[in-house]
Amino acid sequence: MSAPVSTTLEAMTQVAHFESIALEAGAVLGPIEVAYQTYGQLNADCTNGILICHAFTGDAHAAGVSEEDGQLGWWDNMIGPGKAFDTNRYFVICSNVLGGCRGTTGPASIDPKTEQPYGMHFPMITVGDMVRLQKKLVERLGITKLLAVAGGSMGGMQALEWTVAFPDNVASCLAIATTARHGAQQIAFNEVGRQAIMADPEFYNGDYYANQSKPARGLSVARMVGHITYMSDDSMRTKFGRRLRGKDSFDFDFSAEFEVESYLRYRGSRFVDRFDANSYLYITKAMDYYDLAANHATLPAALETSRARFLVISFTSDWLYPSYQSLEIVSALRARNKDVAYVKLESNYGHDAFLVEVEEQSILVAGFLETTLRMERHEPRSHATDADLFARKDFAVIANWVAPNSRVLNLGCGDGTFIAWLGENKACDARGVEIDRDLVRRAIARGASAYQGDIESGLKDYSTGAFDYVILSQTLQQARQPLELLNEILRVGKHVIVGFPNFSHWSVRWSHLVSGRSPINELFPYEWYESPNIHFVTVKDFEMLCKRQNWTVEKKVFLSGDHEVSRLPNLRAEIAVYLLRK
Amino acid sequence: MSAPVSTTLEAMTQVAHFESIALEAGAVLGPIEVAYQTYGQLNADCTNGILICHAFTGDAHAAGVSEEDGQLGWWDNMIGPGKAFDTNRYFVICSNVLGGCRGTTGPASIDPKTEQPYGMHFPMITVGDMVRLQKKLVERLGITKLLAVAGGSMGGMQALEWTVAFPDNVASCLAIATTARHGAQQIAFNEVGRQAIMADPEFYNGDYYANQSKPARGLSVARMVGHITYMSDDSMRTKFGRRLRGKDSFDFDFSAEFEVESYLRYRGSRFVDRFDANSYLYITKAMDYYDLAANHATLPAALETSRARFLVISFTSDWLYPSYQSLEIVSALRARNKDVAYVKLESNYGHDAFLVEVEEQSILVAGFLETTLRMERHEPRSHATDADLFARKDFAVIANWVAPNSRVLNLGCGDGTFIAWLGENKACDARGVEIDRDLVRRAIARGASAYQGDIESGLKDYSTGAFDYVILSQTLQQARQPLELLNEILRVGKHVIVGFPNFSHWSVRWSHLVSGRSPINELFPYEWYESPNIHFVTVKDFEMLCKRQNWTVEKKVFLSGDHEVSRLPNLRAEIAVYLLRK
Repeated sequence: MSAPVSTTLEAMTQVAHFESIALEAGAVLGPIEVAYQTYGQLNADCTNGILICHAFTGDAHAAGVSEEDGQLGWWDNMIGPGKAFDTNRYFVICSNVLGGCRGTTGPASIDPKTEQPYGMHFPMITVGDMVRLQKKLVERLGITKLLAVAGGSMGGMQALEWTVAFPDNVASCLAIATTARHGAQQIAFNEVGRQAIMADPEFYNGDYYANQSKPARGLSVARMVGHITYMSDDSMRTKFGRRLRGKDSFDFDFSAEFEVESYLRYRGSRFVDRFDANSYLYITKAMDYYDLAANHATLPAALETSRARFLVISFTSDWLYPSYQSLEIVSALRARNKDVAYVKLESNYGHDAFLVEVEEQSILVAGFLETTLRMERHEPRSHATDADLFARKDFAVIANWVAPNSRVLNLGCGDGTFIAWLGENKACDARGVEIDRDLVRRAIARGASAYQGDIESGLKDYSTGAFDYVILSQTLQQARQPLELLNEILRVGKHVIVGFPNFSHWSVRWSHLVSGRSPINELFPYEWYESPNIHFVTVKDFEMLCKRQNWTVEKKVFLSGDHEVSRLPNLRAEIAVYLLRK
Repeated sequence: MSAPVSTTLEAMTQVAHFESIALEAGAVLGPIEVAYQTYGQLNADCTNGILICHAFTGDAHAAGVSEEDGQLGWWDNMIGPGKAFDTNRYFVICSNVLGGCRGTTGPASIDPKTEQPYGMHFPMITVGDMVRLQKKLVERLGITKLLAVAGGSMGGMQALEWTVAFPDNVASCLAIATTARHGAQQIAFNEVGRQAIMADPEFYNGDYYANQSKPARGLSVARMVGHITYMSDDSMRTKFGRRLRGKDSFDFDFSAEFEVESYLRYRGSRFVDRFDANSYLYITKAMDYYDLAANHATLPAALETSRARFLVISFTSDWLYPSYQSLEIVSALRARNKDVAYVKLESNYGHDAFLVEVEEQSILVAGFLETTLRMERHEPRSHATDADLFARKDFAVIANWVAPNSRVLNLGCGDGTFIAWLGENKACDARGVEIDRDLVRRAIARGASAYQGDIESGLKDYSTGAFDYVILSQTLQQARQPLELLNEILRVGKHVIVGFPNFSHWSVRWSHLVSGRSPINELFPYEWYESPNIHFVTVKDFEMLCKRQNWTVEKKVFLSGDHEVSRLPNLRAEIAVYLLRK
């Protein structure tokens, strides 16, 4: 990706009018206005449209400088010329959600029946309703199929909802720091905010507009709670610690003595100026109602009909939408063999990370979008360098064994080079698992569907026989539980390809016998105290195990340097490669 | 420990009167009443007194059935005949804290100057003030030195404060689910609660008593926030999930639709009946002010003068007082070579775990108290069985090498048998580190000062040369980073004792050579795919490493079965034991 260019986008809010929308809760709401902004140009075949969905208190002003107040959009560091959502290539749309207070019809809008603001007479809305309204807008803009729907937090919920509500109209989904369903703790925090607002004497059961007033203190308390959940314990410690505000010792009173108190009070009071308390109530309810699996037996069943590619991102310190919730999405998708890439990014910023951690997200998003566009257009791309890849002889063997057009899972896939090669040269649908965060990021950036996780615990989502081939190359000796791992890959793969260095090669045995030391040679080049190899296996051990476990050896190749070895492999093979099945 | 007896304790609240107390914030407050309860009998030499400190909204009624309302005390499952705090053996005291609203002088008490409730004219108080008032009460009851001060959450803060404020008057401290200082997130949550109360129109700047009213909605919101922080995401998911209350589908309104909403509203409204809003404000401020290190350069410096034994317990799912805060206390104590046992207990209950997880805490507390009492009385106890211990010949060698009266750290201490043996037979001050939670628990229960942690990352707290001997017996081959580990124990210990199985024993080499398999024999009895041994070292390897690293080998013994081996150890030794120094 090239460095972001400093070109400033024009951020102009437009309004689309719709007659009405039938809501999930039963009511029909109308007429409806939708405030939206667009950046970049829609191409001739209308295939480059991307919908950005905003989080709870966001709005249509996602990027560029606002004409009104000169403010930058809430995701300006991600959207623009040369940025992750590259407006030189893509046509990017962002609209304020239904029920909002930033230009789209919501509780503060005038009810045509009464000619008064709706207030608490506004009908209850859901994330599904928000998405159906977005669909109308997208159609109005001339787009049948979006290249991508993307969003963080509540924006991610909308993105997920799109893939299920309109499976034919979205090619990919970027679900960031989000969940497929609101859990008890998330509902609980929202409920505290609602109770704080409704406890405010200025709330007047939602009809505060007429009183030229607003439930400012209640809304402010609600926002303070929210703010704590958006940060992390760690980021609060770093940002505030126990520092006092403008003094060295306590005054022992109830003023804002600590900086963190002062900060929260300030954020609370600022929020009141820009956000409507009723919208707070309605949108938090929409989030709480959100459960992608609600009308299905399970989450995998709910995602069954989805046809999009997925990129799921979570952040280590996000405790409002913790990584396990992203993993629920990923697990469900893997259980249905959907195309999903996942990475958990390291960040101290808590839930706010999706707004703050631009650099790593940009690399992932740019690569993911590029591959999606290429796949939508059925374009080939430049081939990976075979020379680099096949410097390791065992890869040549493995590549030769994999049948064209097969489904492949590569364990320890590194930066995705081999997956990419299989996709481009053998038309394989190849996926990868890799524990190293940087390598996964590079794999996803090059368009590979890679999953960041431990190969020894990360396969349980996959159904039995989900892949034609599972490849485990020179990793067996580093596994903590090699037998469990072998059993698991033989469950997931119809065929399994395993390669390992042979601990009974003559040079190893000789070294052990005569040196009186833990063997060190070219095959096992590490001192005993720094070796990543923790379980040593020989050709003979491996074949005994296969026999004992009743695994069928379909093919095997023994390598010594660049040569194949046929006789006395237990003594002469440096590397052994097996093709197995159960 | 025998099973808890069902005998019901009499829970009678008494009141002690004190003239005044000088507060940290400068004011002098008086007269003061303290509500307290006691259970069990004070012994003749007044050495069996234990002070229990309650958490934020607790009170003096810690155990037994209340005369007033028939309710059980808040820690009744821990205090009573045959229970953890065994009232057949100990004299247990619990008093309501200063600033409280359950019998001890607080903001709702009558200010003698105005003959009105103090309200917001009550002076600001601190945890230190609470503890100084407790000291007066304890003296009044005839106790000079407490056997223990114990508490969870804010109770733990008081217990820690005791060891620093009155180092000569407390033999041990049980600090459970607590912290040595309130951090930004903890302050932030408290501030939200305070703002919710003060935003309530019925608050009247704290003078609501006169109005026959109270800031009920604000206090209720504050309690709702608190309740979320006392549970865990996991326990909320288990307890409530997304279950609706009394219906199968949404009504799409703002009633309490989800069970979790209903539960929080109920807890909030119940709380208002039993707790005073001003006490909420003052006690949360006292917690926020709490920082044990405030008047010292560092936390270790603050704990320097403390002379107590410590038992620190944290819970895995407690995110309000997370384990890292307990570890800060433990690290500080270890940095000053204080006697501290630590264990992180597995629980899904979040912060509430200290009230709920009775069984494991009981075992720990009972063992810890028993050892403390024995040490205070300088009583010996029954010896560990030497026969069991010395079934392993290498232990006999190690036991023989350790000098009497020395400071010893035993890595991988298991259930603490060897530590106990060293304490009883060689008068050593022996500590242990063990990663297995169950073994640590058993070690602490038998009175050993054991720390639950990874030996490869858990030694950094200890100062250089903190121990005369560090013992690492037959664990080196299971270490992930053996060289780093050896360097670290040679830093922490003046002498180091290392034992390991010899990978170049003739039987291993022979097996490798002729079998063509990864060696399996009596010394290394595992199949390659299930061995816990991950780094294999030989006598020759080890001696080469010592030489390269310039470590001095002071003694060495090679064992084959029960015999010592003197010739050809690399070939003939099954087990090697070294005494090293840097």
